[in-house]
Amino acid sequence: MLFEVKILGSCSATPVYNRHPSAQLLNIDQHFYLIDCGESTQFQLNRYKVKFNKIDHVFITHLHGDHYLGLIGLISSMHLHGRIKDLHLYGPPGLDEIIIVQMRYSETFLKYKINFHELNTEKRETIIDTSMLTVETIPLQHRIKCCGFLFREKPKKRRINKEMLPANILLQEIAKLKSGEDIFNEDGSLKYKNEAVTLPPKKSRSFAYCTDTIYTESFLHQITGIDLLYHESTFLKDLTLRAKETYHSTAEEAATIALKAGVEKLIIGHFSSRYKDLQPLLSEARETFPNTFLAIEGDTFSIPEE
Amino acid sequence: MLFEVKILGSCSATPVYNRHPSAQLLNIDQHFYLIDCGESTQFQLNRYKVKFNKIDHVFITHLHGDHYLGLIGLISSMHLHGRIKDLHLYGPPGLDEIIIVQMRYSETFLKYKINFHELNTEKRETIIDTSMLTVETIPLQHRIKCCGFLFREKPKKRRINKEMLPANILLQEIAKLKSGEDIFNEDGSLKYKNEAVTLPPKKSRSFAYCTDTIYTESFLHQITGIDLLYHESTFLKDLTLRAKETYHSTAEEAATIALKAGVEKLIIGHFSSRYKDLQPLLSEARETFPNTFLAIEGDTFSIPEE
Repeated sequence: MLFEVKILGSCSATPVYNRHPSAQLLNIDQHFYLIDCGESTQFQLNRYKVKFNKIDHVFITHLHGDHYLGLIGLISSMHLHGRIKDLHLYGPPGLDEIIIVQMRYSETFLKYKINFHELNTEKRETIIDTSMLTVETIPLQHRIKCCGFLFREKPKKRRINKEMLPANILLQEIAKLKSGEDIFNEDGSLKYKNEAVTLPPKKSRSFAYCTDTIYTESFLHQITGIDLLYHESTFLKDLTLRAKETYHSTAEEAATIALKAGVEKLIIGHFSSRYKDLQPLLSEARETFPNTFLAIEGDTFSIPEE
Repeated sequence: MLFEVKILGSCSATPVYNRHPSAQLLNIDQHFYLIDCGESTQFQLNRYKVKFNKIDHVFITHLHGDHYLGLIGLISSMHLHGRIKDLHLYGPPGLDEIIIVQMRYSETFLKYKINFHELNTEKRETIIDTSMLTVETIPLQHRIKCCGFLFREKPKKRRINKEMLPANILLQEIAKLKSGEDIFNEDGSLKYKNEAVTLPPKKSRSFAYCTDTIYTESFLHQITGIDLLYHESTFLKDLTLRAKETYHSTAEEAATIALKAGVEKLIIGHFSSRYKDLQPLLSEARETFPNTFLAIEGDTFSIPEE
């Protein structure tokens, strides 16, 4: 089963050097989650041959234009591509008003329904909870209401070790074994010791998307030990003051969060337009957290299942 | 003096084949007029190395997303690029509300002023009138309120024919000659016959931008004899019925307008996503109006001054 993040946009507010504003596509077993949707996201989806209507969930961190201005165009193109199934949209208060006013003036009547889930960006909330996955908000500290998102696969069942399994096992016994139970004979004696005939569950993978934010450890506990963290890194550390003033982070600060949270891998992005060359940002982050990568558009970060 | 139109976007509502939605940049002697501003226009301006803050006037035909969704991003980028001079924005009712609601939620306070000129799209109005230029609206017939724009240079002064001019001519005499007057001696006798010492004025050039619209001859009188007409051509004529239903035009219809209005040159654009190859649209139009060209992004159409 896939669990991978594709970078669609990597720049901060002023687009330069052919970089595009924030957008990432999370693919969990062919379920597609779009996180942020800066201007041109639909063009980036075209570029990477992603069919718009595979996306059923869109998450918007905050209402600065570089994080949502591509949304209206995408919603409209989904409609023109014949969408009829619901779209779930998660975002701060006001996003619905922004959409509605534009639909009203364009006299657009969508053939599908948008379920808008208004987020309280100031507290941690579970906004999706299925048998496979939870998605939680991560309160962030930016100039306006803003939250990140934590995607976490649910614990998986143990796997049957086919080599160890007798041929005459019953289906209901397999189900019990997958749930971690031992199997007993009618007289109460042990028939199959679970660990003897099963393998541990596959890994439950996790990804957190944290932008835009000033350096804050307030969400460290929430992302501790996750597999993949995207943390904004708008500036180099020589501009720490500028980062603080604008409620952004430096590469070193992103790496410090990754280190303190003990995550497996860090992606940095949301690069200021002052940096044509991104290597200094990468080098700075790697000094603190070596397993850091740049959010390069088109790159995909996969988390293996085991 | 330059008078040239650069194509920034050429597609209709669904962007495909790396085409972008409607936007054109008119450059009259280094005064820049942006006409429509579909999503990604700021990226297209970057691509063609146009500095955003050279643009002082933006014209929006109507509030379908493919004609204005790039505006908020451009307005924001102008701000981030340090703009302080006013921006003049011309568009249908509602455009101001769309901008204001988004500025409010992003808590953006622009360092420059937007002068919004609300258009009555149902009647011909002169919206700019300077010593050099007039801009008029062209009422169009689309599904929602929509108008085109006619840019026309003012009549120019006659030019002094330096070869014919005596060395001792007075400055005020030159001014009179440029205005077409003859020069008389104090005794009332003719000193300089205007036509003997001047050349005719340079050409006053004109460009009309007509999209989106169903085929209508209602504005023919307004664009008669102009140099350059951009007329939408969403479909081929085998889809005339579809064009009528959606209030768009075919290539043949665009060419018929150009022919009947006796314009010099026609550009067709706003191509439906069904046409990967645009040559059939060009061929169809050229059957009726040979001097037709495709709106290819990056192409520039110059009108010479003489």
